[in-house]
Amino acid sequence: MPGRIDNSVPPPADLSIIGLRGVPEIEAGDNLVQVIAAALTATRYEIKDGDVLVVAQKIVSKAEGRSVLLDEVKPSSAAETLAEEVEKDPRLVELILSESSEVLRKRPGVLVVVHRLGIVLANAGIDASNVRDAGHQERVLLLPEDPDQSCAKLRAGIRERFGVDAAVVMNDSVGRAWRLGTVGIAIGVSGLPGLVDLRKRPDLYGRPLQVSETALADEVAAAASLVMGQADEACPIALVRGVPYDRREASARELLRPANLDLFR
Amino acid sequence: MPGRIDNSVPPPADLSIIGLRGVPEIEAGDNLVQVIAAALTATRYEIKDGDVLVVAQKIVSKAEGRSVLLDEVKPSSAAETLAEEVEKDPRLVELILSESSEVLRKRPGVLVVVHRLGIVLANAGIDASNVRDAGHQERVLLLPEDPDQSCAKLRAGIRERFGVDAAVVMNDSVGRAWRLGTVGIAIGVSGLPGLVDLRKRPDLYGRPLQVSETALADEVAAAASLVMGQADEACPIALVRGVPYDRREASARELLRPANLDLFR
Repeated sequence: MPGRIDNSVPPPADLSIIGLRGVPEIEAGDNLVQVIAAALTATRYEIKDGDVLVVAQKIVSKAEGRSVLLDEVKPSSAAETLAEEVEKDPRLVELILSESSEVLRKRPGVLVVVHRLGIVLANAGIDASNVRDAGHQERVLLLPEDPDQSCAKLRAGIRERFGVDAAVVMNDSVGRAWRLGTVGIAIGVSGLPGLVDLRKRPDLYGRPLQVSETALADEVAAAASLVMGQADEACPIALVRGVPYDRREASARELLRPANLDLFR
Repeated sequence: MPGRIDNSVPPPADLSIIGLRGVPEIEAGDNLVQVIAAALTATRYEIKDGDVLVVAQKIVSKAEGRSVLLDEVKPSSAAETLAEEVEKDPRLVELILSESSEVLRKRPGVLVVVHRLGIVLANAGIDASNVRDAGHQERVLLLPEDPDQSCAKLRAGIRERFGVDAAVVMNDSVGRAWRLGTVGIAIGVSGLPGLVDLRKRPDLYGRPLQVSETALADEVAAAASLVMGQADEACPIALVRGVPYDRREASARELLRPANLDLFR
């Protein structure tokens, strides 16, 4: 009834997250814009201007052919030695080292490194779960070569296909110092700032805020991870609606604490 | 029209977050259940069974009278010495030390400690922003004495007032190792697990998952923080709907990595 306010209907939520279900197994060379289009149709959702599309690192890595057959990896002698020390597969250690710029901590079962992308990650973010076996062979999945670039390409593809300007965030579930459990973080972004600077905004009493910057992209990544699931629920794409953000050029590198400002390396 | 499926209406979002706006300035002794009830009425939302109510640490601390006048703090000589070293107000350093069990890192402007609650925090989570000045006097706000207990009380109050079983999470925005920007984390929980164990669930190919536990409460805290804002938007309470969780007794202490398993202290 136009002109009447229906008080029984609550206003829309400030933020909503829709998991795109029924995404098929992704293979190297798959076009993720087509995958997203099919999933949107199946879910009966439309992507809108200002939405944030969050994609799991895993499907981007698969589409970009970043899966590696362990049998084809030749460990260096350095990898062999380190593998013995940390009780890991030398082929996996070889891959971890080749993906990293520095080993920060090591102990049996654990290798925490600075990934070549600058992110501090256990095992360089290399994942052995949910990667299809080719005839019982062991495969692992590396991070995409350039996650920001992958996000930018997806964003451009979405603009072309749907005529909307949506931001794209690539998330991954990672461990942390001090706290147990993994949380989603942003390893790539396009069109959405990694960090939001609150320094210019006063608090409720007009004083400058002490806490100055919010890791916006990491919070979006964590929120999306709540609906994306991690195990047998195949829901690697989520649509986040209602995040206020400046549409500026951005990089997930904004979120990296420079080593000289990091007291915990 | 009952009996007909309207394909133009998309299905509900998997997860929605509603910020409760118009929450008044909280004073010591305020009843937060009443505050929540008033905010729900004003927002035209109902709290439902299975919802997760996220409350900002700041309003719980205020309601519990955890604000301290800096002029009433007498710094010890240890606090005086440390304050000079890190170039901070000795009264603030006295409070930080009294709230902490261990100083992990120090340098000018920064004191990273293990809070008596076990959480690793800069400045013991003590906040000087958005605390009302009483006649130009400097006030700061300590964390609640027992955030899990505060959440349990709120949950019981909500059950009594609204007749629903909702979980409660208390969040705070904190800095991290390795990454810039703050993210919301859970410093107290009731009725919602801090950690969700995925070890028993196979991945898409039936193999056990490598990454075993998700920090569910931290991801909920980060998601809520996206709508709660931090500066001049007074939105310290959010309703998160659609999080799947086991309704079990829980504690935010589940999320603390034991010191002997922490390679970054």
